[in-house]
Amino acid sequence: MKNMLEGLRVLDFSANAAGPSCAAVFADYGADVVKIEKPKVGNDERTYGMRVDDVSLLGAWLNRGKKSVTLDLKDPEAVALIKRMILNFDVMIESGRPGVMEKLGLDYKTLHAINPKLVYCSISAFGQKGPYARKPGYDVLAQAMSGLMHITGEADGPPMKSGTTLSDYVGGINAFGSVMAALRYAEKTGIGQHVDVPLLLTMIYLNGAVEYLNVGIDVGRTGNYHSTLSPYGLYQGNNGQSIILAVISPKLWAMFCELMGRPDMIDDPKFNSLNGRRENRKELDYIVEDWLKTFDDIQIPADLLDKAGIPSCKVLDNKGLVDDIHVKDQKYLVDVPTPKNVTSKETFFARNCLAQFSETPGTIGQAPVVGENNYEVLAEYGFSQEDVDRLQAKWN
Amino acid sequence: MKNMLEGLRVLDFSANAAGPSCAAVFADYGADVVKIEKPKVGNDERTYGMRVDDVSLLGAWLNRGKKSVTLDLKDPEAVALIKRMILNFDVMIESGRPGVMEKLGLDYKTLHAINPKLVYCSISAFGQKGPYARKPGYDVLAQAMSGLMHITGEADGPPMKSGTTLSDYVGGINAFGSVMAALRYAEKTGIGQHVDVPLLLTMIYLNGAVEYLNVGIDVGRTGNYHSTLSPYGLYQGNNGQSIILAVISPKLWAMFCELMGRPDMIDDPKFNSLNGRRENRKELDYIVEDWLKTFDDIQIPADLLDKAGIPSCKVLDNKGLVDDIHVKDQKYLVDVPTPKNVTSKETFFARNCLAQFSETPGTIGQAPVVGENNYEVLAEYGFSQEDVDRLQAKWN
Repeated sequence: MKNMLEGLRVLDFSANAAGPSCAAVFADYGADVVKIEKPKVGNDERTYGMRVDDVSLLGAWLNRGKKSVTLDLKDPEAVALIKRMILNFDVMIESGRPGVMEKLGLDYKTLHAINPKLVYCSISAFGQKGPYARKPGYDVLAQAMSGLMHITGEADGPPMKSGTTLSDYVGGINAFGSVMAALRYAEKTGIGQHVDVPLLLTMIYLNGAVEYLNVGIDVGRTGNYHSTLSPYGLYQGNNGQSIILAVISPKLWAMFCELMGRPDMIDDPKFNSLNGRRENRKELDYIVEDWLKTFDDIQIPADLLDKAGIPSCKVLDNKGLVDDIHVKDQKYLVDVPTPKNVTSKETFFARNCLAQFSETPGTIGQAPVVGENNYEVLAEYGFSQEDVDRLQAKWN
Repeated sequence: MKNMLEGLRVLDFSANAAGPSCAAVFADYGADVVKIEKPKVGNDERTYGMRVDDVSLLGAWLNRGKKSVTLDLKDPEAVALIKRMILNFDVMIESGRPGVMEKLGLDYKTLHAINPKLVYCSISAFGQKGPYARKPGYDVLAQAMSGLMHITGEADGPPMKSGTTLSDYVGGINAFGSVMAALRYAEKTGIGQHVDVPLLLTMIYLNGAVEYLNVGIDVGRTGNYHSTLSPYGLYQGNNGQSIILAVISPKLWAMFCELMGRPDMIDDPKFNSLNGRRENRKELDYIVEDWLKTFDDIQIPADLLDKAGIPSCKVLDNKGLVDDIHVKDQKYLVDVPTPKNVTSKETFFARNCLAQFSETPGTIGQAPVVGENNYEVLAEYGFSQEDVDRLQAKWN
């Protein structure tokens, strides 16, 4: 076996971000992933965000390494075909609003009856059951309801959402692991199951502050600072540049004072304990930022801190991230062949696989053009080129 | 098989949040997870955050469902024991700074030579190799270097960290899925491997904005708003309450205007297109918030929006989350028995498992007291109670 998930077959019925990103991880690790999408235009994520030659960068990343087959699921002939195909697959991933797959006749119960070993994964905002199951759901709703926005942002500012579609991405990673776990059970027992991944549940899982209500405390926002440690968090330098510091031990405190040229502060009763530094945080913040502002380029104090072994880093913008020596050296971003309908570029860079494996490293593959693999995949089910052309023409 | 991961054995050498949370997912799903920790005091996460009867709530959640065995790894007798134990385990999880496990003689190479099928997972801030591998790493550094802080926060404010230890939690979820994938390969081929999970890589994976640099655009912060959609994001009502709206189609726009009692706005050229609403966003935000402020309790417009089928929700604080009808109905939070050294409470509530499984639902188990399973686990390796007592006494 050359690839980690060789021989595993995944049918990807999902759209938007969470479902496609989950299916893509299977592709990264060598599974055979067939994406089923709308004829001609493809699924919605192919229109998201910025584009190269009319191809969405995000859409390409979300569908990396997959095969694309276009089917019109309103046609009973397409539904019948899926019911034949499903016998050849280990995993099915869908992200329709609960009830949609039932209406299509492709719900868990139906497909489980055909292939009892199938792991059928549903990704949705609020899960398959319960009061909110059929409510419309978007990433930002899951962030807002989970308490995560309540604890993110400045203490005197509004609740703040993450700048990324956090629940979609983390939901996708979560669904991947959940399906892998259900697959182990299916391999050992022959019994597949329905894996229900609510984005809201995933977001709540990230909110450690909720458990403090067990002792009656509803933790709020503390911005970029820490409720007990200082200096810890974000500090501003010149020209809108900023730096992160994590001075968490007495030893680091002494080193940090020396570095600032303020050895007098090491034993200053105002600052020589965690409590003191917390109580006098505003004054301390001012001193730290005053020191940082003596440098035009924040790289200079960053290097000094680094050399001294004080946990710290610059806050990188995306350009800084791409140019970072560690990110480059470790290929956290990687060049990937563009889809075949991109003609102005041979490759673009993309986020690399989620982990590094010593024996079976993953690969970020090329994304298919909509319907690129129609002939190849449908031939397995006895469809000639003419049959495929007839079907696609019917749906155009 | 009663539980999804029955028969799987995981040795958890990790400390802090990312590693323990990864190992805990295995426990949720029925694996046998043995945590190795420092004699007497246990690992560091047992001191984190708020406490009940001197027991950390977070520490208990991170170690849920595990067995605890205390060993002093500076003692060669303990290291020799681990080398015997490892033959019985499928997975090893560690989160030491790169180089630490080598110094202990428990690095991947050494344990792989003993048990070639072992999946050995290392979780660290910057991975096992490369320029930053041995730098001290904390959650906030991974957030800052990934570009995620750069894209989170108000457009005119500083970069903003998440209010939760995002990279620790997502890193743990990622490591779980990565290990499950490597386990499938090990089961099929007999070949284990080293799975290297850098928290920085995990955070970069969440940053979809980085790929826009392929077309020369470094996306910045847009606060709680969306760069193209409006109304979308957070809107303030009275008394510091706020609501999330996602009015993303012409149909929803018309419904929303009717609901606000402003049917005149539906076709107003200032607002009747996505472009118009984006260009006049500030005026629109004012109108929306003005409407919301006609209600003392934001629950009233929230219910109206909900009834109309307009994607929306209240921003919940932690108390609101705990009391939410869907969260209650679907048990996204669950009562768990407190560890045996908590006497003032029989149970506390905690975040539930990451997904809902139709055949093999997971369970959030009780966390062990430090060393609770010393006798039971070490008996498997021929240690009598007296042997265990002798060892623990030596290390006290």
